Amino acid sequence: MKKFEEKSLQSTLVYEGKIISLKVDDVLLPNGKEAKREIVNHPGAVAIIAITKEGKLVLVEQYRKALERSIIEIPAGKLEPGEKPEYTAKRELEEETGYGCHDLQYLQTFATSPGFADEVIHLFVAKDLYKIEEKADLDEDEFVELLEVTLEEAEEMVKEQKIYDAKSAFAVLWMKANQ
Amino acid sequence: MKKFEEKSLQSTLVYEGKIISLKVDDVLLPNGKEAKREIVNHPGAVAIIAITKEGKLVLVEQYRKALERSIIEIPAGKLEPGEKPEYTAKRELEEETGYGCHDLQYLQTFATSPGFADEVIHLFVAKDLYKIEEKADLDEDEFVELLEVTLEEAEEMVKEQKIYDAKSAFAVLWMKANQ
Repeated sequence: MKKFEEKSLQSTLVYEGKIISLKVDDVLLPNGKEAKREIVNHPGAVAIIAITKEGKLVLVEQYRKALERSIIEIPAGKLEPGEKPEYTAKRELEEETGYGCHDLQYLQTFATSPGFADEVIHLFVAKDLYKIEEKADLDEDEFVELLEVTLEEAEEMVKEQKIYDAKSAFAVLWMKANQ
Repeated sequence: MKKFEEKSLQSTLVYEGKIISLKVDDVLLPNGKEAKREIVNHPGAVAIIAITKEGKLVLVEQYRKALERSIIEIPAGKLEPGEKPEYTAKRELEEETGYGCHDLQYLQTFATSPGFADEVIHLFVAKDLYKIEEKADLDEDEFVELLEVTLEEAEEMVKEQKIYDAKSAFAVLWMKANQ
C-alpha cells in the first residue's frame, strides 16, 4: 500500500542509541511540496497474552521511565537481531514470568506509534503454561513483579489506569472477547 | 505507582523537533547500579472510534513514513498545547472525515510505547454523526482518504494488515465486543 507515498529527498541520522535511533527525513509530498518527518527506529518487540490453567492473565509490573511511573503490562520484550518472534516470545515469557508454555499461537502484529516510530509488536497467545524450575535471568537493568489476575480484576486495573499501555489494554479486551 | 523507581542522575536533550524530542537520562536502578534510558517526548494524541448511523466504522487511509507504507486507521491527531482532548477529538474528526458528532464519549487512555516514549492516546467513541457542510482543512502536509466499513470488513482489514496500528486494532476489537 503506497497511497500518498512520501519519497525521501534526504535522510539525516540524528541519534543512534542502545535501543532506538532517530532520523529526520526531508520528504516530497503528493502535492509536490516538501516536509520533514521525524522517525524513531526500533527493533520491534513481542508481547504475550499468557493465560494460566486457572484462566488468569499473567501480568508484570515494572517502572517505565518514559512515563515516570510503574505500570502493569502483559509480558513483552524486544526482538534481538535475527531472532524469530516465536523464539523471543518464549524467551521473554520465561525470563519475565518463570512460565514455559506448550501452546503458543501467533495472534497479530501492530505498529505502536506509526506517526513517528517504526516499532511493531508481534502478539502471541500462550496457554498450557508450566512453571520452570530454574528460571532464566532478567536483563541486568530489568526489575519486574509478577501478577496473575482474573478478567474482572484486569478490567478494574484498566479503569484505574494501572494497566495503561496499548498492548495490555488490547490484551484485556481480547480476553473479554474470547473467554 | 512508583515501584522500582528509576531516579534521573542526569538528563541530556539530544534533539528537539517539530513533533517529538529525544533525551537520554542516566538513571539510578533499584539495585544501586546505573543505566541509560532513551526517551522520546511527544505531546500526546486523541483517536476516535466513530460509528455512522448505519453502524459502520469510519477510517482514514494515510501514508506513514515511519512504516514506508500507507495504513488504514481510525481518525486521530496530536494534542495542541493547552487543548482539551475532547476538543481535539471533535476537531480531528471534522478535519479528517468531514463528520461532526452529537455524542462524544471518553473511553480510555493508553500509552503507545512505554518502553521508549511518553506518548499517550486518549480514545473517544463518537456516535450520532452528521456531515459538515463546510469541511475544515487538513494540515497542509496531511493527505488522507476516507473509508466507512462494517465490522466484518474491518476484521478482514486487520487480517490483511491493512489496519495495522495498535489504536485501530483496539478499535476493531472494541467494536466487536460492543456491537
